[in-house]
Amino acid sequence: MNSIVQLINVKAAPPSLNDNTADLDRLKKVLAEQLAGVLPIVPFSRLAKVATRFRDAGFAGMAVVNDLPGGPQLVDFMAEPPAVLPAMALDLGTTHLEAVLLDLLTGRELARGYRENLQVRYGADILSRIHFAVRDNGLQLLHDAIISCINSLTVELAGQADLEVNDLRALSVSGNTTMVHFFLGLDPYHLIREPYIPMVNGPDPCRAGELDLVIHPFAPVWIMPSIGSYFGGDLISGILASDLDQNEQVSMLIDVGTNAEVVVGNRDWLIACAGAAGPALEGGVARMGMRAGPGAIEHVALDVASGKISYSTIAGIKPKGICGSGIIDLVAALYLARIIDLRGKFRPGHGSDRLIETKQGLAYVVAVADESADGHPVIVGQVDLDAVMRSKAAMYSILTTLVNQVGVKFADLHRIYVAGAFGRHIDPRQAIVLGMLPDLPMEVFEPVGNSSLKGACQVLLVRRDRERCRELIARITYLELNVNQEFMLRFSGAKFIPHTDHALFPSVPFFSEN
Amino acid sequence: MNSIVQLINVKAAPPSLNDNTADLDRLKKVLAEQLAGVLPIVPFSRLAKVATRFRDAGFAGMAVVNDLPGGPQLVDFMAEPPAVLPAMALDLGTTHLEAVLLDLLTGRELARGYRENLQVRYGADILSRIHFAVRDNGLQLLHDAIISCINSLTVELAGQADLEVNDLRALSVSGNTTMVHFFLGLDPYHLIREPYIPMVNGPDPCRAGELDLVIHPFAPVWIMPSIGSYFGGDLISGILASDLDQNEQVSMLIDVGTNAEVVVGNRDWLIACAGAAGPALEGGVARMGMRAGPGAIEHVALDVASGKISYSTIAGIKPKGICGSGIIDLVAALYLARIIDLRGKFRPGHGSDRLIETKQGLAYVVAVADESADGHPVIVGQVDLDAVMRSKAAMYSILTTLVNQVGVKFADLHRIYVAGAFGRHIDPRQAIVLGMLPDLPMEVFEPVGNSSLKGACQVLLVRRDRERCRELIARITYLELNVNQEFMLRFSGAKFIPHTDHALFPSVPFFSEN
Repeated sequence: MNSIVQLINVKAAPPSLNDNTADLDRLKKVLAEQLAGVLPIVPFSRLAKVATRFRDAGFAGMAVVNDLPGGPQLVDFMAEPPAVLPAMALDLGTTHLEAVLLDLLTGRELARGYRENLQVRYGADILSRIHFAVRDNGLQLLHDAIISCINSLTVELAGQADLEVNDLRALSVSGNTTMVHFFLGLDPYHLIREPYIPMVNGPDPCRAGELDLVIHPFAPVWIMPSIGSYFGGDLISGILASDLDQNEQVSMLIDVGTNAEVVVGNRDWLIACAGAAGPALEGGVARMGMRAGPGAIEHVALDVASGKISYSTIAGIKPKGICGSGIIDLVAALYLARIIDLRGKFRPGHGSDRLIETKQGLAYVVAVADESADGHPVIVGQVDLDAVMRSKAAMYSILTTLVNQVGVKFADLHRIYVAGAFGRHIDPRQAIVLGMLPDLPMEVFEPVGNSSLKGACQVLLVRRDRERCRELIARITYLELNVNQEFMLRFSGAKFIPHTDHALFPSVPFFSEN
Repeated sequence: MNSIVQLINVKAAPPSLNDNTADLDRLKKVLAEQLAGVLPIVPFSRLAKVATRFRDAGFAGMAVVNDLPGGPQLVDFMAEPPAVLPAMALDLGTTHLEAVLLDLLTGRELARGYRENLQVRYGADILSRIHFAVRDNGLQLLHDAIISCINSLTVELAGQADLEVNDLRALSVSGNTTMVHFFLGLDPYHLIREPYIPMVNGPDPCRAGELDLVIHPFAPVWIMPSIGSYFGGDLISGILASDLDQNEQVSMLIDVGTNAEVVVGNRDWLIACAGAAGPALEGGVARMGMRAGPGAIEHVALDVASGKISYSTIAGIKPKGICGSGIIDLVAALYLARIIDLRGKFRPGHGSDRLIETKQGLAYVVAVADESADGHPVIVGQVDLDAVMRSKAAMYSILTTLVNQVGVKFADLHRIYVAGAFGRHIDPRQAIVLGMLPDLPMEVFEPVGNSSLKGACQVLLVRRDRERCRELIARITYLELNVNQEFMLRFSGAKFIPHTDHALFPSVPFFSEN
């Protein structure tokens, strides 16, 4: 496996008049025998500590060696092997952070936690934070917020696992390009300005101490490389987690967060793109929209004959709002029940008493006031529907533009991996009815969960996966959609349910009348 | 040549929508083309600076790349090529520091300076400083003293060359093992305790900022590796400067400082040892002894017939004392004039009015009170002679033990390189009369000056020489004299002028009577 930090058991001959090799050189020499002949580098500020601990341990014990792209780095020495060698994998999301503590010796999960990104106080979304960053001290505040947030999550997880934070010997970070810029304290100015160039895509690993993280100061910090401003390390993690880059067959990976990010390919080639398709689906746009969390309506069914609606919420509690998967189910159901037309507009007079008039126009009541958590009905208005229509049109256009670019047909896709909360909750069948995902058999769609976090775990444990990351950034062709004419054309055609060209969706009923 | 810091001229295509490589990755990629395909590592704390300067310079200019054993390290970017790229080479001596500023672009010397090692306030010699180091805060004081001393020398040299200290992009340090321990803040405790093991012989290069040096914080600090507690990096420098390790013929390098350190060998093998032989010759023991500096009597001649003495001083000023080479000349002359016997004892009644009675016994007046700088005569007593006899016996024993160890005869030596002030001032002929150096033709002896400093200059300029250093510490066999029986036996035999076995010195007159 070759985890990012290795414990190497050494037993050196003690020094003598006939063998006067210096302490540290002695240790490096015996280590080199177990490191394919390579002498590890010792950072200056660890020199005295490592040499002293090695001598105090009687020239035998466990060397702590960071396995870095630049070569092995000797950072500590322990007289006795520790019970665990913990490290943290982190999904650095725009709205939330999720982390896992792993034991590098066994790969076992030791703790897991989740918390809101403290940066929300400076901006709810990436764009507002990038604007905030240019203010006086703005970047520093954003940087400090994310470090402090990671540190408090670290303390919590270490507590769960009954460890000291200083026991944590490595950190891997998987996040979008902007979050990584904030994490490293790098100016995000050019990320959102044509031609959208990050300051760095593949930063070399740094030490936790350099970032004021509370874990061991010489813990290597592995940052998932990004491909561009809109295609971040979280997607590279997704590729690692799904093995998209290893298979002979062509597959696709879709991640819908703030943006929709998509990659298609196999072991021979990979092409990626990203576009704004997410907000309506992530809970940021719909009036009653929310992230996929407890109380979110995640599935909706509508009996066409009776007009009776049923729904389920995450964690089974009273509804507080509706998340992306619920919205998709709802809009598909409204279409099949002909309460909305193929342009996604309410059809006045349809939808029985659920279709109500509000100050903002017609709206559909998903949950009545009595049923909801706060006594207010959960409703979806025309504005929300319009947003969903734009999102679904963008998503389908992104997917078609991308496959078209490489001459692949949707039917050629072995798998479509769907990442994140979106992948976990969405019913692909309803997304197909909406014309958001291509009309393919259900078994093609495979949710991959939090693949950003999964990839972050993999790089802690497997050297080959760390190498894959660095190879991937050279291998992936990035297709810029912001200036893509084809995308714009396709977008117009995709603004109908399921599509202007209904031959593309043979499994979806087509209602020609408005 | 490949100096330790390289300026690499790059011109990258500016980013565009069709080429969205991030700024730093773009720079690394164009650099790799000039670095044999190797992507340089960028230290975390230089990332933003390098990327920003590269962009601000219009994606073209000069990259500053440190050439380190672990691979190239990108640390800066300049829009315009600088006139010079200065670096400092330092001979870190126990009593004095000597330094040169070099231009890494041309190899040209920019400035040169010399100053007393501020550590003398904590102990005149290595041993007393090692004892001082174990006191509360002692090591820290010694470390701070040497850093502060280097910094003030740096400021002086930068001033000479009309440069800012921050312009200095590298430092190489050549010193004995103890001085290097103090320089790095490492505990010297075991250096003087059997089996005499340093904490480290071959430290990896660190950054100037890590040592609070005033030069550029990302200047690499190259430390000459040592072979053992008594065989330091200054000798490795001597080997580099003399090419001892490159020649087919067998040669010898002798450095007499606080200790006598000797290495013999050729391109196929190298053997080294060290022993206490120096004090009497370095100015530390003889009552009127002094280092080879202005006012030191460096040469002495005695007319056997007339008993008339003549001498010369360094810088031609009035004598203040006598340095090692003067002492050697004097003792050889006293022997040839039969004022001392073959045991190095004054022969009462010889030496005319120059041989006087003092409270400490007989003494020889080298310069009368009227001639001297301070109105006191420069005299050498029996105690001083005894010290010289021990030193010369130790030296010859070290040399014979070493060559004997490898089955080489003195006559097989192509060259005997004599390093330092000792090599610069000594008359090998007089040292032969004394039985200190082997009886070989004069052309065998070659002074190599401050080879410690020369080697330090070489590693700044030539990559192959940096590699040689690291190879040397693996190649050299170190012979420990502290427990060598043969050395002890030879020492007894060498306590006569020129030697008990006068067949070893055919060119030296032998006087059998006492």
